[in-house]
Amino acid sequence: LVSTQGTRDYSPKQMAIRERVFNAIISCFKRHGAEVIDTPVFELKETLTGKYGEDSKLIYDLKDQGGELLSLRYDLTVPFARYLAMNKITNIKRYHIAKVYRRDNPAMTRGRYREFYQCDFDIAGQFDPMIPDAECLKIVHEILSDLQLGDFLVKVNDRRILDGMFAVCGVPDSKFRTICSSVDKLDKMPWEEVRSEMVGEKGLSPEAADRIGEYVQLHGGLDLIERLLQDPKLSQNKLAKEGLGDMKLLFEYLTLFGITGKISFDLSLARGLDYYTGVIFEAVLLQQENNHVEESVSVGSVAGGGRYDGLVGMFDPKGRKVPCVGVSIGIERIFSILEQRVEASEEKIRTTETQVLVASAQKKLLEERLKLVAELWDAGIKAEVLYKKNPKLLNQLQYCEETGIPLVAIVGEQELKDGVVKLRVVATREEVRI
Amino acid sequence: LVSTQGTRDYSPKQMAIRERVFNAIISCFKRHGAEVIDTPVFELKETLTGKYGEDSKLIYDLKDQGGELLSLRYDLTVPFARYLAMNKITNIKRYHIAKVYRRDNPAMTRGRYREFYQCDFDIAGQFDPMIPDAECLKIVHEILSDLQLGDFLVKVNDRRILDGMFAVCGVPDSKFRTICSSVDKLDKMPWEEVRSEMVGEKGLSPEAADRIGEYVQLHGGLDLIERLLQDPKLSQNKLAKEGLGDMKLLFEYLTLFGITGKISFDLSLARGLDYYTGVIFEAVLLQQENNHVEESVSVGSVAGGGRYDGLVGMFDPKGRKVPCVGVSIGIERIFSILEQRVEASEEKIRTTETQVLVASAQKKLLEERLKLVAELWDAGIKAEVLYKKNPKLLNQLQYCEETGIPLVAIVGEQELKDGVVKLRVVATREEVRI
Repeated sequence: LVSTQGTRDYSPKQMAIRERVFNAIISCFKRHGAEVIDTPVFELKETLTGKYGEDSKLIYDLKDQGGELLSLRYDLTVPFARYLAMNKITNIKRYHIAKVYRRDNPAMTRGRYREFYQCDFDIAGQFDPMIPDAECLKIVHEILSDLQLGDFLVKVNDRRILDGMFAVCGVPDSKFRTICSSVDKLDKMPWEEVRSEMVGEKGLSPEAADRIGEYVQLHGGLDLIERLLQDPKLSQNKLAKEGLGDMKLLFEYLTLFGITGKISFDLSLARGLDYYTGVIFEAVLLQQENNHVEESVSVGSVAGGGRYDGLVGMFDPKGRKVPCVGVSIGIERIFSILEQRVEASEEKIRTTETQVLVASAQKKLLEERLKLVAELWDAGIKAEVLYKKNPKLLNQLQYCEETGIPLVAIVGEQELKDGVVKLRVVATREEVRI
Repeated sequence: LVSTQGTRDYSPKQMAIRERVFNAIISCFKRHGAEVIDTPVFELKETLTGKYGEDSKLIYDLKDQGGELLSLRYDLTVPFARYLAMNKITNIKRYHIAKVYRRDNPAMTRGRYREFYQCDFDIAGQFDPMIPDAECLKIVHEILSDLQLGDFLVKVNDRRILDGMFAVCGVPDSKFRTICSSVDKLDKMPWEEVRSEMVGEKGLSPEAADRIGEYVQLHGGLDLIERLLQDPKLSQNKLAKEGLGDMKLLFEYLTLFGITGKISFDLSLARGLDYYTGVIFEAVLLQQENNHVEESVSVGSVAGGGRYDGLVGMFDPKGRKVPCVGVSIGIERIFSILEQRVEASEEKIRTTETQVLVASAQKKLLEERLKLVAELWDAGIKAEVLYKKNPKLLNQLQYCEETGIPLVAIVGEQELKDGVVKLRVVATREEVRI
């Protein structure tokens, strides 16, 4: 008797932690004026086909039981693009929080599951350059600060800069995407291994690989952008120049937002998915060396996103494009960290919000207890009663202590005669008759 | 380009209505001291096998892509029972709100979908009789009153009374479940048709069917229970007597809760699912003849539930039982009614919570706008800015009117010099400088 591999149940305590995280994220999305939508958990199989590159093999399909061929959604971005095209929406700022499904190798201690939540915020529409893009980064910054996960860094790059860099390094056009996939592995593999994949498996010339190797070690801020705008090779490439110009504008806006301190323009950032067309970014938590609690949790990417101006057009019969930029917060890794922190701190987390337990000291008062608790419910007060005819007072008080209920309303013969109820504060044992 | 059959996307406006409904339901569940859990959207296929009787054919299976055989959950009750057995939990009061999946014929105008929400509240544990059962009915009463859906009625019966009734009417033991399925159709079919199904298709004797026919037309309150307790045949049947005794106790508790006015003991209520063992109930909305708005929405069952004392034991290797009783609120039908009501009333529903738009009257003030909006975000204020370098003031004010943003903060050359911002109330055009 097990739940399915790579998934998990959430216990009430885990749900309490999860709700805290969701609340922080949702308030941020609402603070930025987002609407909310929802889409079905499955899509037509063909909707997902050809959107995820090599990762498509990880898509869950439903059994053909007659009718349509269906797949479980792999992310929230493709369903969003399908939704926009289907409803001819050209302008929306929305968030969507829902589970997505990937037939990946689960690594549950590191917060990697086959069923996991994504919290997506996207801005669709034709706007002046980089303003929505900057807001997405501001959102990542606000959420990660708010959740107090420790120090973090948001790496930023642009697909146009990458493509321009590949071109000037001598990568043939046909190899752009596959070389991009290799670069994407730089956060997990040293350059030497990535280089040998490029040259060995993917047939890139050693010279081209070495030229890429020089670029991808660069990271910095406005200064680096200025330097690359002067780079004799890159500055000659139209795409790279466009990307660098926009990157400069982005950093100007991020300066106005006061968040450049945690943003790094990083030429090694590539991101796996096929559909990005402009700015891309990824937030990572930085190792906290002096913190024993979190050492066992591997740090890594907790948010990512970018611009995808072509995806909606793929769903429109006439190919009409709707430019989009968005961010996805990866809740599971954040949740693992917070859960472990709660475990370590021995903080007691309440899993209910009950304000008062209706109790009795004597026997045969079930009717009085039920009448009183119904009165409290009808008055909007969160109240409970033990489902026993004659519970012991001690058991009732213990229940309060175990579950954190702060107040007990005690009915007894004397109180009934006097028409009052004795209200006791569990922690201090103070009592008042009301 | 369509979404999959029998499912739907929720637009921002629909989400706003949905959130109202969820909030009402969740506050009620929390008011009654429930914890919350979550389980995966799919279960092992074998977990669902043999739990739903004839309806099992409606289960969605996942494709065998290697690994485990999985199915999408059909309800939240079976995953809950699996969760209890797996974690050896013998005592919990929890709610769970999530989507379930049925390959049924969709009837979307009547709120019947293949993907739909269930809002479940269940009490598991060994307690004194009928106290948790009465609380479940109180919850249905509170939620339906709170949502103001019009008049409603909660029909109550007990599987033991049904089985006792079948026995005294001369139904052979082996036909109990299938005859029970026929009785379950009485809310959609006249007695004559149900009778001919019993006699024709299911081979029941006409005499037995006629005896059933007399019982199933009975409905009432405590008076009917008392009468049946004196019924010369039923009172001789052990199961029926037990069920009627508990029904009496239930009505006494419901009287204390002050809700018997909308509860009807109804011998025609059977409920389809196999796993019920005691009290069963179902809430229906009553036709509102003078209300044109809702005439087009078919009324019907909006909540149901009952006692299932054997289900958890089916998942326990040693068959240890955990008695359970629970209620499931069917959100989709409620949602259809409220959505139609909103459409008819032309009530304007806000889909964002933005408090203030940061605007400018003159050109070239994008930087100032971005600085101000970031300050507002950092102060926790819900704020937006148009993603244009030089938007017209009129367009900015129009945006507020369309989306219901109550305030505009206007920055201009003069205000910048004076170090102030002009705050305008959109509705009244009142302005203050701050």
